[in-house]
Amino acid sequence: MYIGLVTGTVVATIKHEAFHGRKLLIVDQLDPDGEPTGAYDICVDVVQAGIGDRVLVMDEGNGARQILQRAVAPVRAVIVGIIDDVEF
Amino acid sequence: MYIGLVTGTVVATIKHEAFHGRKLLIVDQLDPDGEPTGAYDICVDVVQAGIGDRVLVMDEGNGARQILQRAVAPVRAVIVGIIDDVEF
Amino acid sequence: MYIGLVTGTVVATIKHEAFHGRKLLIVDQLDPDGEPTGAYDICVDVVQAGIGDRVLVMDEGNGARQILQRAVAPVRAVIVGIIDDVEF
Amino acid sequence: MYIGLVTGTVVATIKHEAFHGRKLLIVDQLDPDGEPTGAYDICVDVVQAGIGDRVLVMDEGNGARQILQRAVAPVRAVIVGIIDDVEF
Amino acid sequence: MYIGLVTGTVVATIKHEAFHGRKLLIVDQLDPDGEPTGAYDICVDVVQAGIGDRVLVMDEGNGARQILQRAVAPVRAVIVGIIDDVEF
Repeated sequence: MYIGLVTGTVVATIKHEAFHGRKLLIVDQLDPDGEPTGAYDICVDVVQAGIGDRVLVMDEGNGARQILQRAVAPVRAVIVGIIDDVEF
Repeated sequence: MYIGLVTGTVVATIKHEAFHGRKLLIVDQLDPDGEPTGAYDICVDVVQAGIGDRVLVMDEGNGARQILQRAVAPVRAVIVGIIDDVEF
Repeated sequence: MYIGLVTGTVVATIKHEAFHGRKLLIVDQLDPDGEPTGAYDICVDVVQAGIGDRVLVMDEGNGARQILQRAVAPVRAVIVGIIDDVEF
Repeated sequence: MYIGLVTGTVVATIKHEAFHGRKLLIVDQLDPDGEPTGAYDICVDVVQAGIGDRVLVMDEGNGARQILQRAVAPVRAVIVGIIDDVEF
Repeated sequence: MYIGLVTGTVVATIKHEAFHGRKLLIVDQLDPDGEPTGAYDICVDVVQAGIGDRVLVMDEGNGARQILQRAVAPVRAVIVGIIDDVEF
């Protein structure tokens, strides 16, 4: 998993029903100090995250499907939770 | 998933029947601002995308097979949909 | 697997029960000489590692789930053990 | 999948029977313009590719096993086909 | 798979029984010309490789588990064989 920052949303024409009613968010990967690494994922949102939120991203398909509680879902990255704090 | 730009097609001699009748597209990965990252995938197309289209790419094998609705298909990257808009 | 250094903890609001009672640690990836590579993972801890510990990280979901002894757990990276020594 | 160039062969002492009689090829990853990206894979060959051939590489284990038509085969990358043409 | 060079061993306190009696080796990834790429893996050894050996590394969990002939083993990278020669 990694720490991400929600920066936008993607509107797309997708026929696969697993995406119906799901919001697709652009999430920039941050390093532990909060700086963007340059990597990003288009994530399915299950926690009602919004632009500007710092989130925890599960970036593995099998784990992502378990978060969605669906054995069959064509996803790779899912927002698992909202980050409250990072402590060093 | 990531945002991609269809830039070309690949013509190849492939014996595996899962590829018969499937178009193989070259998709450059874009960053959220629309600039190429340098990465790319050869993707199976299921949404009739064409050169110049901005698309959403599923880059995980198990998820890709679910888009194709086949349990057995030797694919890793599939074009999931056409991107209509990116909002920040 | 890779060698990591525990540098912090993440506090997040996560609804999925697989994370309840689990500590989420920030682990910087080290190269074999002990220098940070710039990569990191948010890891689930099962060995009571603490900040400053050098640890062995399993960075694959199926392997991580086996460490947790759960077939269903939305994780990708798990701290497998504490590193005692690296010999060249 | 990616476009690759076969540049060599690896001769190794391997006990696992899945590799018996299989040629192991060094395949440099090319970008869509035909330039090496610096990445490579040691690939199992199932299409009788030779040095200098441009090939299509499946770089995911589950997909690779399906190309080999074996549920159990310790492979990650397989040469899927010979590339005839790339069109932009 | 990739070509690696065994450069060291890791001694760690690991409770999971799948690691009992297994040697954990540090393997630097080499490019096809034999130069280090900067990447490495901590690998489980099943071929009695030693420091200085050039080896073939399977870097995918499902494939690695098949090399170990265990359906359940929390590993991602395994040394598959000793490299005898690389031919261009």
